[in-house]
Amino acid sequence: MKDVLEIGGQLLQSRLFLGTGKFSANAVIPEVVAACGAQVVTVALRRIDLQYPEENVASYIPQGCIIMPNTSGARNAAEAVRIARLAQAAGYGNWIKVEVIADNRYLLPDNYETIKTTETLAAEGFIVLPYMSPDLAAAKRMVEAGAAAVMPLGAPIGSNRGLKTKELIRILIEELPVPVIVDAGLGRPSEAAEAMELGAAAVLVNTAIATAGEPVLMGSAFRQAVEAGRKGYLARPGAIRREGTASSPLTGFLQE
Amino acid sequence: MKDVLEIGGQLLQSRLFLGTGKFSANAVIPEVVAACGAQVVTVALRRIDLQYPEENVASYIPQGCIIMPNTSGARNAAEAVRIARLAQAAGYGNWIKVEVIADNRYLLPDNYETIKTTETLAAEGFIVLPYMSPDLAAAKRMVEAGAAAVMPLGAPIGSNRGLKTKELIRILIEELPVPVIVDAGLGRPSEAAEAMELGAAAVLVNTAIATAGEPVLMGSAFRQAVEAGRKGYLARPGAIRREGTASSPLTGFLQE
Amino acid sequence: MKDVLEIGGQLLQSRLFLGTGKFSANAVIPEVVAACGAQVVTVALRRIDLQYPEENVASYIPQGCIIMPNTSGARNAAEAVRIARLAQAAGYGNWIKVEVIADNRYLLPDNYETIKTTETLAAEGFIVLPYMSPDLAAAKRMVEAGAAAVMPLGAPIGSNRGLKTKELIRILIEELPVPVIVDAGLGRPSEAAEAMELGAAAVLVNTAIATAGEPVLMGSAFRQAVEAGRKGYLARPGAIRREGTASSPLTGFLQE
Amino acid sequence: MKDVLEIGGQLLQSRLFLGTGKFSANAVIPEVVAACGAQVVTVALRRIDLQYPEENVASYIPQGCIIMPNTSGARNAAEAVRIARLAQAAGYGNWIKVEVIADNRYLLPDNYETIKTTETLAAEGFIVLPYMSPDLAAAKRMVEAGAAAVMPLGAPIGSNRGLKTKELIRILIEELPVPVIVDAGLGRPSEAAEAMELGAAAVLVNTAIATAGEPVLMGSAFRQAVEAGRKGYLARPGAIRREGTASSPLTGFLQE
Repeated sequence: MKDVLEIGGQLLQSRLFLGTGKFSANAVIPEVVAACGAQVVTVALRRIDLQYPEENVASYIPQGCIIMPNTSGARNAAEAVRIARLAQAAGYGNWIKVEVIADNRYLLPDNYETIKTTETLAAEGFIVLPYMSPDLAAAKRMVEAGAAAVMPLGAPIGSNRGLKTKELIRILIEELPVPVIVDAGLGRPSEAAEAMELGAAAVLVNTAIATAGEPVLMGSAFRQAVEAGRKGYLARPGAIRREGTASSPLTGFLQE
Repeated sequence: MKDVLEIGGQLLQSRLFLGTGKFSANAVIPEVVAACGAQVVTVALRRIDLQYPEENVASYIPQGCIIMPNTSGARNAAEAVRIARLAQAAGYGNWIKVEVIADNRYLLPDNYETIKTTETLAAEGFIVLPYMSPDLAAAKRMVEAGAAAVMPLGAPIGSNRGLKTKELIRILIEELPVPVIVDAGLGRPSEAAEAMELGAAAVLVNTAIATAGEPVLMGSAFRQAVEAGRKGYLARPGAIRREGTASSPLTGFLQE
Repeated sequence: MKDVLEIGGQLLQSRLFLGTGKFSANAVIPEVVAACGAQVVTVALRRIDLQYPEENVASYIPQGCIIMPNTSGARNAAEAVRIARLAQAAGYGNWIKVEVIADNRYLLPDNYETIKTTETLAAEGFIVLPYMSPDLAAAKRMVEAGAAAVMPLGAPIGSNRGLKTKELIRILIEELPVPVIVDAGLGRPSEAAEAMELGAAAVLVNTAIATAGEPVLMGSAFRQAVEAGRKGYLARPGAIRREGTASSPLTGFLQE
Repeated sequence: MKDVLEIGGQLLQSRLFLGTGKFSANAVIPEVVAACGAQVVTVALRRIDLQYPEENVASYIPQGCIIMPNTSGARNAAEAVRIARLAQAAGYGNWIKVEVIADNRYLLPDNYETIKTTETLAAEGFIVLPYMSPDLAAAKRMVEAGAAAVMPLGAPIGSNRGLKTKELIRILIEELPVPVIVDAGLGRPSEAAEAMELGAAAVLVNTAIATAGEPVLMGSAFRQAVEAGRKGYLARPGAIRREGTASSPLTGFLQE
């Protein structure tokens, strides 16, 4: 089966994107990346990272991965644009995860500022993947603004609550011409599989892996779950029925 | 990681049991078994199978698999015991899936007759795996009667409805000293993963694979989902939180 | 609308049965009964109650209610039968809620001992309402044994977890010729309404009301929820649709 | 209990708003309004209504109700503003439900155009209630723009799918200083109760009532469900527990 995901001209085999913000130590990251097979890895930049790159989280990401800096810390479009440009100037390439958050409690994205950021950065040649609140009209504007994909939340960042916005994400998947990547909230491998069965192009996971008792094992679990869910989508599931239907010949044996 | 499931003295690597009742043609079964990696495969016997074994569904099951005949068609303990003995006499070994169904619409098992069947067959040396309605007191009686594992339903047979009895199965897993194998109703790979994350020892799937547009691909999907769910259970998931928690340093970048 | 529930020859207007075991003080019970409109009220008897009836919880139940003693504390049929007979001898009438529990952690009922109890007590002329684990085959046996209704659990007693066994209860409602009363686990008024919309004949609530900050107000809430759910069932809900359908003329106004 | 909802200077006893778009005949509306007790009723205007007011749906709404015209049919802010002004000019008062929909399949609102509409109309003195996609940042902007309340969707309009956006609506309720009214998607009385238990200030229902087999009875069901859910919220529900907790003295009777 040849089933690749194309984003920004890149062909990706892996549909599991990895976030790196919450690991207890950066040293575990290479092993987790290997276990989960991620080809796209997000990093949050700190100013100091740009000065001392050797201590930077990005230095722990294996060769061959696409590093996608995020604009974490930005509270509006201007700040997000500035962070993106600094990242690019520091050599982080042209993929950018736009993350504009004005709410400190639930860390929900600001779709409006995210649209503006997307427009500016896409025009500058960035491959823009906006983190967003799952809203169809806003997502369409992000696509018009040049987003390479959209990344709606399943639940608040870091909550491990699961695919709570399923109803809205299903609609995004149906209606948008770009890949839909579920980002934030997925806490269990089964939830990643469910997102993929729905038709999501990929998922981005961080907290669920980083806060597990065994992050490397959990990384492997998510890898398989994402592949399972993708295959489950492609294999075209059978109908869901209200009543039972016999798998086996019920009256066959003794009455024959 | 050495994580094997022991049932009836057998060490199993695979935690996905396969049912064979609903495939459009028996010829697809070997490929499905290979794709899903099942080591335990259930078959429903028809009387004619015992006379012409070469046309029997069992003849399509690869060498090395444990064939577990079921007592499908039995409506009480006496019939189930009779089918089990006939199967054994025909050379099908000593594993038996007890299935006693008196309800033609939802195909729900009769726990009481199932307990009696389990008692008789376990005393005769069978490895007995009873299909059951998820009820703790009945499950304890099956264990006392000698069940090697119990197989509660997630939803009616063939319905593809999912893990609808999660609340009760969670309790069985916590309270019973034998493996709990979710049998019937699972319709999507994510649902199999969810059962495994809950702590189920294995799952048995038939309809979801057999009625998929591409059964071989779906078999592979369930294999990975079961492994993902098992790893997700072993990796000890992080806490589920009500609010968001930052993955990335929210205020770090621009204010430093 | 004339919509009454007949059980044991009694015509009931109220479909909310009240349990009395958990109130902080018996003195609040009359007000709660008035607020929730219950006509059937369960009480757990203590031996001492039979000696000093004036301090008995039953003495707080308003005239006109049917007092339904339960067999709480019984661990098998013999004990349950003995409690029922003592209650009858003490003047508690002939309604009895059979409750046989052998599991101390989840307090799940033992269907098998419950069937035996039902058989004995029904033969003695009791109006028997067995608390049960939602299993169709067991429920059918309770009906054959003479149960006037069956009372499957929604979730473990006292858990406030809600209608977690919906899938199985729906089937009981469809398949049984006696009223199905959801007992145990309902924690919110909406969950009681949901049970009624499914076609339950009534619900029994105790913990959700007794542990609320304001039990009298919560009793009133459950009363309305049960009535709402019943009406919702009788009013025949419209179809559930996958997509949107306009309530209002979408293109009507400006283009006309 | 004195529990009133204040919006736009009006004190409302009823927390069930009624939509009028889908009834089979306008003649049933007065009876439905009486049954459901609604004090706020939305109407979609057609141009012709303004010319022949006697055939207008609004003429079927009982005296004393607040008629809240909606801007159904508007695809952007300019159209919505124009409809609102025409309605006001025709004597429909100053309440307006802003509804800007650019998506013909799921009929999802356009939050961005809705914010602009809200700003314009609030500045003109309208009492503005915007129908919206549940997104916190957008809702905050609507509040800043002068919305008297916000009306997030539970599921697509007319779908009867239920409170599918619960996770996001819960956050709106916690974080916003204005009433949150769940509008669209609620299909069963229990779902309205659930929204109220979550802390919603009110719900708006149309399709669920209008497409029921018996709309008047269903109107009455929703009225009670809304009241039940509100009381359930105010009565402070008890804790949800993982295990069972005895309602009755388990060991009390026979061992004393």
